[in-house]
Parts: sequence; C-alpha cells; structure tokens
Amino acid sequence: MKGGAPFERRNYTVIIMSKENISTPVIRRLPRYYRFLGELKSQGITRISSGELSRRMGLTASQVRQDFNCFGEFGQQGYGYNVEVLQSEIGNILGLNSLHSAILIGVGNLGRAVAQHINFNAFGFQLIGFFEEKEALVGQMVKNIPIRSIRDLDEFCRENRPEVAVLCIPKTGAVGITEQLVKLGVKGFWNFSHYDISLNYPDVQVENVHFSDSLMTLSYKLNNDK
Amino acid sequence: MKGGAPFERRNYTVIIMSKENISTPVIRRLPRYYRFLGELKSQGITRISSGELSRRMGLTASQVRQDFNCFGEFGQQGYGYNVEVLQSEIGNILGLNSLHSAILIGVGNLGRAVAQHINFNAFGFQLIGFFEEKEALVGQMVKNIPIRSIRDLDEFCRENRPEVAVLCIPKTGAVGITEQLVKLGVKGFWNFSHYDISLNYPDVQVENVHFSDSLMTLSYKLNNDK
Repeated sequence: MKGGAPFERRNYTVIIMSKENISTPVIRRLPRYYRFLGELKSQGITRISSGELSRRMGLTASQVRQDFNCFGEFGQQGYGYNVEVLQSEIGNILGLNSLHSAILIGVGNLGRAVAQHINFNAFGFQLIGFFEEKEALVGQMVKNIPIRSIRDLDEFCRENRPEVAVLCIPKTGAVGITEQLVKLGVKGFWNFSHYDISLNYPDVQVENVHFSDSLMTLSYKLNNDK
Repeated sequence: MKGGAPFERRNYTVIIMSKENISTPVIRRLPRYYRFLGELKSQGITRISSGELSRRMGLTASQVRQDFNCFGEFGQQGYGYNVEVLQSEIGNILGLNSLHSAILIGVGNLGRAVAQHINFNAFGFQLIGFFEEKEALVGQMVKNIPIRSIRDLDEFCRENRPEVAVLCIPKTGAVGITEQLVKLGVKGFWNFSHYDISLNYPDVQVENVHFSDSLMTLSYKLNNDK
C-alpha cells in the first residue's frame, strides 16, 4: 500500500487473500501484469480500467478481473485500478521485496551475459557468488564479485547459505552440481541446462529456460503457419 | 524414416497425419520429447516402451501415447518405439530439417551469448547476419560473420530475405525495428525483448524468452513453497 496518496487510499481496499490453490496459468500471468503496470506507471498513467488493461494486454476484461480476484480485491467498481498500488501488490505476491541470495554456476558466454544483462535485484534475487570450473577465469570480476573456483563451492555455501543457484552449465555438469547444491541446502534453481531437476528433486523449486525448446517451437510454428 | 535398419523398418509404421488442430500443450512437449530421445540415442538405447519413456520424463504412459497419436502411428503394440525413428519423425514435425534464415539484432552481452551459445542449425535456423546500433562493434566478427550497422538492415533484408529475426535489444528499440522487419517480410521473431510483438502483429510467429518473468515466477514459487 505504500506510496498511495490519501485520495487513492480511500478509494482502494487491498486485501491479500489466500494464496493457496492459485492455478499455474494465473501465476504465469502475474509477471506480465507486473511488467505492463510498470510501463503504465512510467508513462504517468495512474489508474486503468480492467477493460483498458485487458485490451492492452490482449486478454479479456473478465479474465483480468478473475485473475486479480484470486488474490483479493484490487479495484473499485467504476473507477478501475490504481496502477501503482496494483503493481506494488502484485510485486508483493511475487515476493519481489524479499531478496533471495543466489549463486551462479558457469561463467562462460551465457553465464556472463545472464549475470550482466539481467537485473536480479529487481526480480527478487541477489547474486552473491560466481563459480567456474575453468581455473583461468577464477579471480576475474563479474559485477564487482570475483569468480570463485568450483572447488570452493562447498565451503562458500556452508558459510553463506545461498537459497538459489543459477545453472549456466551443460547437463553433464549439472547432474553432480545439483546433487551437491541440494545437499548444501539450495532450495531453488534457475536452470539453463537441460538437466531435468524437478524430476529428480521434486521438493526444490525450479524455473527452466530452455533455449532450444523455444527455438524448436518457433520452427514448428513457422512450418505450420497457414 | 532414414537411418532405420531393415529389421526396424519392418516393425514400424510411420504415418504422419494431419497437423491441424494440435493443441499448444502437445506442441510444447514435442521439443522435450526430441531432446529426451536424443539423449537415449546417445546412450545407445534403440527402443523404448511408452511406459519407460513416460517414467523417465515424468509423464503418464497414456499421455505419451496420446501425444504421439496426434501425429500418427509411431510405435507397435508390445514392442515400443524405435528411438531413432521416433526422434527423426518428431524432428520432421518440428521442421528441424528445413533451415530458416535468421538475422540477430543487438550484439551486446546477451546477443553475443545467444549467438555463440546456441546451436541454431540443430534447431532449424541458420544465422546469416548480425546487426548492431553501436558503430564501434560494426565489423567485428561473430561466428565468422561480420557485425553490420543497423543502418544497413533494409538493404541486407531486401537482398537476403531473412525469414526470422532474433531480437536481443530492449523494448524501446524493438518497437521500430519490428515494424521495419515485418515490412521487409520477416515472418518469425525469437524475441528476448519485452515488446509484445504478437499483440501488434498477430500474423507473425513469435517465441518469447522473458528472463524477468521466469525469475519472478521462481521468486513466487520460493515464497509460496510449503
């Protein structure tokens, strides 16, 4: 609720309801809402109707209202949504205010680009360590943090207790490293490898980025374009 | 069907049926089947039952059979699937044998990593050009291809008719470039920007890679982990 002007506060009731049993498609749409609302905010738009928001996002108005109703009461009949309040609340639901400590494994082309290109802090994570098998890279700096040898992973994790690992290594390496990290208490993986972590560790949280699957899907779409 | 030994040929009937009305979830699973079958092949496994394949992939056997039935008859009762034939046929369905020409826009950290890390040719695409706004990068080589100035985009596209563009630029740049590329006949986008291409160009094929959405989803999962 922070940041809302008194007038806006009077017009909004924000009640965060149970987060249980929220369907995966709804959860998947939340980041997109968050991004769209951020853009509206940066354009100086302070309120928006479900109709207008849905039009801009290519959804139906009832879809938008249903989605937000999963989490509570975000708008007021006939007035619409307060953009800043709504974005902030979706950010809370996504947990973006509580930074999870994260380490990144594999500082090759991909790992380096991921580290440098992505604003982890804006999305709920803080990179606290980089690990690499190639000793030649050890000691180089990425985002003002020295790259450590993968041999120091155990010690670092025991001392710093990272919650999340970003895996920018091939599947062959990911199998052993994942086992090691799970034993060391890592609870979440942002997985760029093709190792199917969820299948082997159903209790850890995983988000996969599978470039090849995305490319193959694009190939399919192009070949079946009517 | 190529590559199958006579024995295997006798035991399999592969009929590619209509590809119309295949649901999105099935299409989304095809790349994963393709990858899994490739791994089985590299492990020297030549045939596999739907039960065993589903167990390894964390699906149900009936799900696997249903998925493959969308496309035709891939296995034989009591014998299972020929791994090589099945992978090859899924590759055909995905269109991996016909390379689509592609250009990559934005050769910063991310664009360079995407170009160097991903084996485009294995997944149905051939990178034929790199374009960059920063003149200092123009002329540098990526994968033995010189980086071109974005000012030469029009001329290059008229001459080389790329089918696909890989957008490794921020949304601000992507809006104008996409309009330009669609006018130049580009039919597909592999989109790393946050620009919602599909909303504005419903007739082009788009696959998005939204890093921030993936990270936010991981944040949600970690915060709602019971």
